[in-house]
Amino acid sequence: MIDRRIAKLREKMDEFKCDAVVIFSTLNNADIRYFTGGNVEGVLVVDREEANLLVSSLYYQTALDEVKDNVVLSKDLDDVVDFLKKRGIKRVGLDFIRSSHKQIKAFEDFEIVDFTNQTLILRMIKERDEINQIKRAAFIARNAFIKVYPYLKPGITEKEFADELTYQMRKHGAEKEAFETIVASGPNAVYPHHVPTDKRIEDGEFVVIDFGASIDGYNSDMTFTFLMGEKTDEKKKLFNAVFYAQLYSTEMIAPGRTKASEVYNRAKKELAKFDLDKYFIHGLGHGVGLEVHEFPYLVPTNDIVLQPNMVFTIEPGIYIPGQLGIRLEHMVLVKDMDTEVIAFTPFMEAM
Amino acid sequence: MIDRRIAKLREKMDEFKCDAVVIFSTLNNADIRYFTGGNVEGVLVVDREEANLLVSSLYYQTALDEVKDNVVLSKDLDDVVDFLKKRGIKRVGLDFIRSSHKQIKAFEDFEIVDFTNQTLILRMIKERDEINQIKRAAFIARNAFIKVYPYLKPGITEKEFADELTYQMRKHGAEKEAFETIVASGPNAVYPHHVPTDKRIEDGEFVVIDFGASIDGYNSDMTFTFLMGEKTDEKKKLFNAVFYAQLYSTEMIAPGRTKASEVYNRAKKELAKFDLDKYFIHGLGHGVGLEVHEFPYLVPTNDIVLQPNMVFTIEPGIYIPGQLGIRLEHMVLVKDMDTEVIAFTPFMEAM
Repeated sequence: MIDRRIAKLREKMDEFKCDAVVIFSTLNNADIRYFTGGNVEGVLVVDREEANLLVSSLYYQTALDEVKDNVVLSKDLDDVVDFLKKRGIKRVGLDFIRSSHKQIKAFEDFEIVDFTNQTLILRMIKERDEINQIKRAAFIARNAFIKVYPYLKPGITEKEFADELTYQMRKHGAEKEAFETIVASGPNAVYPHHVPTDKRIEDGEFVVIDFGASIDGYNSDMTFTFLMGEKTDEKKKLFNAVFYAQLYSTEMIAPGRTKASEVYNRAKKELAKFDLDKYFIHGLGHGVGLEVHEFPYLVPTNDIVLQPNMVFTIEPGIYIPGQLGIRLEHMVLVKDMDTEVIAFTPFMEAM
Repeated sequence: MIDRRIAKLREKMDEFKCDAVVIFSTLNNADIRYFTGGNVEGVLVVDREEANLLVSSLYYQTALDEVKDNVVLSKDLDDVVDFLKKRGIKRVGLDFIRSSHKQIKAFEDFEIVDFTNQTLILRMIKERDEINQIKRAAFIARNAFIKVYPYLKPGITEKEFADELTYQMRKHGAEKEAFETIVASGPNAVYPHHVPTDKRIEDGEFVVIDFGASIDGYNSDMTFTFLMGEKTDEKKKLFNAVFYAQLYSTEMIAPGRTKASEVYNRAKKELAKFDLDKYFIHGLGHGVGLEVHEFPYLVPTNDIVLQPNMVFTIEPGIYIPGQLGIRLEHMVLVKDMDTEVIAFTPFMEAM
C-alpha cells in the first residue's frame, strides 16, 4: 500500500523532473501518515531509490513502531539539507502552500521545483481501505448522534449538547472529534463556524449541528439542521430550498463527467429560485480524508472533473444576518457508475 | 488593550524600519486574536495609521461582532497586495515561519523585511488579564482532574480515562481541551505524545497524564505521573529524580536574571546525578498563552533571560524504552521578585 503510494509519488516526480520531493509535517500529519504509515511529525524525503523519514528524538520511538519498513528512519531532522546533498539531489520538489517561507529558503542551494498540491492530488482518489475508514468515522458520528438526539430540545444549551455529542463520539470509538463540534441555534446559526455558547435552544429556532469523528487519521463531516417546534410555511420554504439544493446537486454527479464547479452552480441555482443565493456565503463542499478539508473543493472556480473514489461533502447553507442559518451536509462517495451518500441518516427529509 | 498592543507592534515596526506588518492566521488564530480581539481567520495589516483586518465572507459576521473598533474590517481578503499598494506601503514585515512560501511570494513587488517571531516576542510578556485567563484554564483543568481522579485505578483503559477527563474539563467550563489529553501507562509512557489506547492500566505501572483546558483562547498545560500500587525503592528513585529536577529548576529562577538555558541545564544536571539524563529527550518547557506552545522555550540553545509576566511550563521527563516513562509538568508565572506555580495541586510530592 505504502509502496504503491510512493510509486505514484515518483511518477509525479518524473512529471515534474525532480530528483527528490521533501514533505514537511502539516495538520494531522496527513502526508507523512499517507506515505509512511506513521503518525509523527517529521520531514519525508523521497528520491529515486529511497524514502527517508527524518524525525526528532521526541517522535523517534513512535516512528520506530509505526513507520512501514519501506521507509528508512533517521534522527537527522536538523540536517535535511546535508542529507539531500549527500544523496546527490539537485532538483527538489516542494509544496509552497504547505511549507513555510523559512523551510523553503533552506533549499536555496538546490533547484527548487514548485510541487504545490501534488500530494493532495494523489490523496484525492481514495483506496478501498481509506473509504472504509471514512465510512467507519461517519458511522461512529452518526451512532453517537442517535444516542444524544433525545436531548435535543428547547432548554438545553448549545454547549451542553455539543459536549455530549463530542463525548459520545469518543465513547462510540472515535479517537477524537474531527473538528470542534458546532451547535448553533437561532440567530447564532448565521456564523458558519459558530463556537457553541451557553445560549439555550429555544422553541421555533433552527439548530445547526455540524460534527465529525476521527479514527486512525480518517475523518467524517456532516451537518444536520433541526427545527424546534412548529413548521411554519415560511420555515418550510427556507429549509426545503437548502434541502433540494443539496439533493439536486448530489444527484447530478456523473462520475468522470461532472465538474466540481457545475455541482456548486447547481446548488446555487436552486437557492436562487427562492432568492436565497445571496445568503450562500461559502463553497459547496470539500474533500474529506486524512484531513477534514482537502481536495477536491466544490467551488465555482474549480473545474476539476469528479472521479470515482473521490469522497467529498455537499453542504449548501443559507445565513440570514440577525435571523437564522440552515446548513445541510452529507458526504458523497463517487463510484464507477453513480454516487453513494455515506452514512445516510433518517433525519434528512424535506419538510 | 488592543491599542496598547498595536502601539507595541508599531514600535517593533520602527525598529525593523517597516511601513507595515502583514500577519496571517495560524493555529488558534493567536496573533489575530491578540491584535484584533476576533477569533477569525484573516490577514491583518498594520501600518502607521491603521490596523486593517481582511477576512473572507465566511468569517465576516463573526469579525463584525468580535473585532474591536480600533481595527478596520474589510472583505478584500483576496486583494492584500492591492490593498498595500493603495496605502503606499513599500517595506513589509513578514514572519517567515508563520507564513507559507506562497504567501510571502505574493509580496515580491515590495521590500520584504524578516519580521519572524516578533509577534511571539510581544506575546511572551503577559498582561494581567491574560494571566488571569491562563489561571482560569488551569483551575478548570485541575478541578476536572480532581473529579475524575477516583477512576484512576488498574482496570480502566487509557482512553476511557482520557475521554472522561476531557469531558469533565468541558463540563467544568472549558471551551475545549487545549490539546488531545494524553494518558500513557507503563511501557506506553515512553512516547511523550502517546495517543491513549484501549490498553488497561495495570498494577505496578506509572501512568502519565498530560492535559490542559482552553477558554477564550487561553490555554493551560500540566502533567501528572501516578504510580499504581507499591512504591518500590527503584520506582521511588526514578520518580524522585524527575520530581527534584522539576523542583530545583523551578526554584532557581530569579526574575530578570536567569536564562532559559540555565533552567534547562539545572534539570538535566539533576537527572544526570542518577544517570537518567540520557532518557530526557525533549526541552524542559515552553511558554503557554494563546498557543499551547509559544515563547519562551526552555531549551539548551535559548539564552533569553526570564522576565516578570512570562508564563511557561517546566516539565522534565524520562523515557526508558520498553519500560516506562515519567513526566511532571507545571506552569510557572514569573513575578517581580519570585515565581508562582499556577494551579499547584495536592498530587505533586516526592515519593
